Amino acid sequence: MNKKTFALKGTVCYSETPNRLFVMEDAYLVCDNGLSAGVFPVLPEKYQGIPCRDVSGCLIIPGLTDLHLHAPQYRFRGTGMDLELLDWLNTYAFPEEARYSDPEYAFRAYSIFTEDLKRSATTRASIFATLHGQATELLMDLLEATGLKTFAGKVNMDRNGSPDLQEESAAASARDTARWIENCAGKYRNVKPILTPRFIPSCSDALMDELSALQKAYRLPVQSHLSENLGEIAWVKELCPDARFYGEAYDRFGLFGGKDCPTIMAHCVHCTDEEIALLKERGVFIAHCPQSNTNLASGIAPVRRYLAEGIPMGLGSDIAGGSSLSVFRAMTDAVQASKLRWRLLDDTLAPLTLEEAFYMATLGGGSFFGKVGSFEEGYEFDAVILDDFNLPCPLPLTSKERLERLVYLSDDRNITGKYVFGNMLF
Amino acid sequence: MNKKTFALKGTVCYSETPNRLFVMEDAYLVCDNGLSAGVFPVLPEKYQGIPCRDVSGCLIIPGLTDLHLHAPQYRFRGTGMDLELLDWLNTYAFPEEARYSDPEYAFRAYSIFTEDLKRSATTRASIFATLHGQATELLMDLLEATGLKTFAGKVNMDRNGSPDLQEESAAASARDTARWIENCAGKYRNVKPILTPRFIPSCSDALMDELSALQKAYRLPVQSHLSENLGEIAWVKELCPDARFYGEAYDRFGLFGGKDCPTIMAHCVHCTDEEIALLKERGVFIAHCPQSNTNLASGIAPVRRYLAEGIPMGLGSDIAGGSSLSVFRAMTDAVQASKLRWRLLDDTLAPLTLEEAFYMATLGGGSFFGKVGSFEEGYEFDAVILDDFNLPCPLPLTSKERLERLVYLSDDRNITGKYVFGNMLF
Repeated sequence: MNKKTFALKGTVCYSETPNRLFVMEDAYLVCDNGLSAGVFPVLPEKYQGIPCRDVSGCLIIPGLTDLHLHAPQYRFRGTGMDLELLDWLNTYAFPEEARYSDPEYAFRAYSIFTEDLKRSATTRASIFATLHGQATELLMDLLEATGLKTFAGKVNMDRNGSPDLQEESAAASARDTARWIENCAGKYRNVKPILTPRFIPSCSDALMDELSALQKAYRLPVQSHLSENLGEIAWVKELCPDARFYGEAYDRFGLFGGKDCPTIMAHCVHCTDEEIALLKERGVFIAHCPQSNTNLASGIAPVRRYLAEGIPMGLGSDIAGGSSLSVFRAMTDAVQASKLRWRLLDDTLAPLTLEEAFYMATLGGGSFFGKVGSFEEGYEFDAVILDDFNLPCPLPLTSKERLERLVYLSDDRNITGKYVFGNMLF
Repeated sequence: MNKKTFALKGTVCYSETPNRLFVMEDAYLVCDNGLSAGVFPVLPEKYQGIPCRDVSGCLIIPGLTDLHLHAPQYRFRGTGMDLELLDWLNTYAFPEEARYSDPEYAFRAYSIFTEDLKRSATTRASIFATLHGQATELLMDLLEATGLKTFAGKVNMDRNGSPDLQEESAAASARDTARWIENCAGKYRNVKPILTPRFIPSCSDALMDELSALQKAYRLPVQSHLSENLGEIAWVKELCPDARFYGEAYDRFGLFGGKDCPTIMAHCVHCTDEEIALLKERGVFIAHCPQSNTNLASGIAPVRRYLAEGIPMGLGSDIAGGSSLSVFRAMTDAVQASKLRWRLLDDTLAPLTLEEAFYMATLGGGSFFGKVGSFEEGYEFDAVILDDFNLPCPLPLTSKERLERLVYLSDDRNITGKYVFGNMLF
């Protein structure tokens, strides 16, 4: 019996499918060597005598996945919410990211970010850093220490930045990226590098060529932005007049999914039919970021359509286009945004259900990390314990109602335990 | 010098106009006999020696006003978010409200609600109870004890309810309402009765006639719902075929604003031009409830237009169509909803600014209660102290940035002091 073999006892909830929530009360959730061994009404004979943390009265859910966020923007979350994407980047995001040329600042700021991420219900995340290799490694050192399993990317941008936030050439960007990748090699157990071209307006064709070569050489996954905001999309059309749609500007460099290039594209608010078909064909993961899409007045993505097409999808907080680090908040934002889209824009796409939002936040996004986001046997054991002690109620609630209330109303005080790949964080 | 004469020292913020935020750091905010004596960089000579609570490092803002919420629905907030208004009423709201025929249940449930309201940043609220007189008085007893200044209304509904939630006749409803009003007379200092016809579909013409007479006899203010959801509006048109618009169905009974009938109408999502003109003419207060309007897929109110027309307006949490009791959350929801409305529906109405949302939550809604919602001299002294201790930042922030961050990110832990009409609650 492995030292990572133990049980949690409580009310276990996880998504079996986008529409079906598994709930078992007074259940034993068994972790065997970092993997879930399943959920049982009675502890099976082979697990008799293993350590058991009894959190009866609490809910136990899979850890949440945040498929898209910018760590260096955490400082200004909840401020500067008065502009659309492109002006917002130039006014708020780029000046802040430029500060990360200073490792001392990076360490102070990233320490605050990683501490808060550790306390949240998130166990997996795919994170943008800045273009600075040294600061990105500092972030990765701090992420490693949290115990969370994450991807982190040094950003590439060789055009349309600002005087203090742009790499000097495609070659320089590629050289610094290669050095960063080499520095990471073998250094971390929990955090892995991910190739991170900021978005098409930030990356010349020459840079995309270099990144394509790096991707193939190091077999790295890729994250970027796609079809977020109307101004951005018009700009990409100008910059890449021969691309039939935005996504093709990534695809022609082999940086748009496919078997050997796992890819996350954030937003996908305004995708054309052709773009959606290619997302599906390539198995690109969509990171749906409803709060950011609202704050930056980008619009509302047709999530119901993506679900129906079977495109892999998770949720993103998109700090700091989004102001909340909570993936619970992303769940309720996703449901709410889908209702407004249905009411105002297109009543053929029914609003999302809580079950669907929960699925996206767990199994949907978790799948980018492998067998993650479920308690079915063989899934990596990421678990979060939720205690609704401070939400008194004059009536008994069903477990599903308790879960729904926690999704809508909880904060970090309700998160009383957290495990990643079988390791207890708290 | 009155015993309620004292100063708070800190960073004082309040709305001078919908677009202008007053901010003074290291300021003295003086309370003289329950009223604000103004904000000063140095304590004026006549106030030398008064007690001073030094909260330097904290922000001090006017208490927030919640212009619309249903206390008996607090129990199921954050659950049952899968239906539109009319089905939601029948499925979730009416069955819960029916429980308040039991005073023991009412006491338990209302105790939870009033305790949470006291801890919030809200100092003024206009609240729906249920149709039960006794339970409504219990709610008022509990509200009185909080020290908050509130209106609370026994609901009237003599049609289209459910078997266990409907008054037996217009006469019975009027009789119970008169008894409730008489029972309240002289009993409370902080909580006052407000006439509360639920909405037109719940109130027969005969009942509206009775309520009109009660309103005139007791000179009570009025609260109700208006033009919230498309299904509701179509139903009102069927029920009142001779009313040119929904609001006229209240107005023909004299229950729609005017000098002698201060009125709050919640929602106003889908008002016609004629209805807007009458709202303006009558000085009706609009309670804008963006979270509820999203959760129930009602739509997004044209708030920018109402502001431009000078119609009095505040924010409502609309518990439990809204799931959050926080008026800070209502502020950010208002800004976010206005952005989606601008993007998806009508780009002639610019998104709301943080200043405008703050104004609506303070001076806008507060004005229903008199001179409330500002720290200008002569306003009733409602103050909330905000401490951003748990939002560390690697850079100094301006006071306005700190306020914006608190609006987006704070919870009850950040509310470290609260005063209503000069009385310290904590």
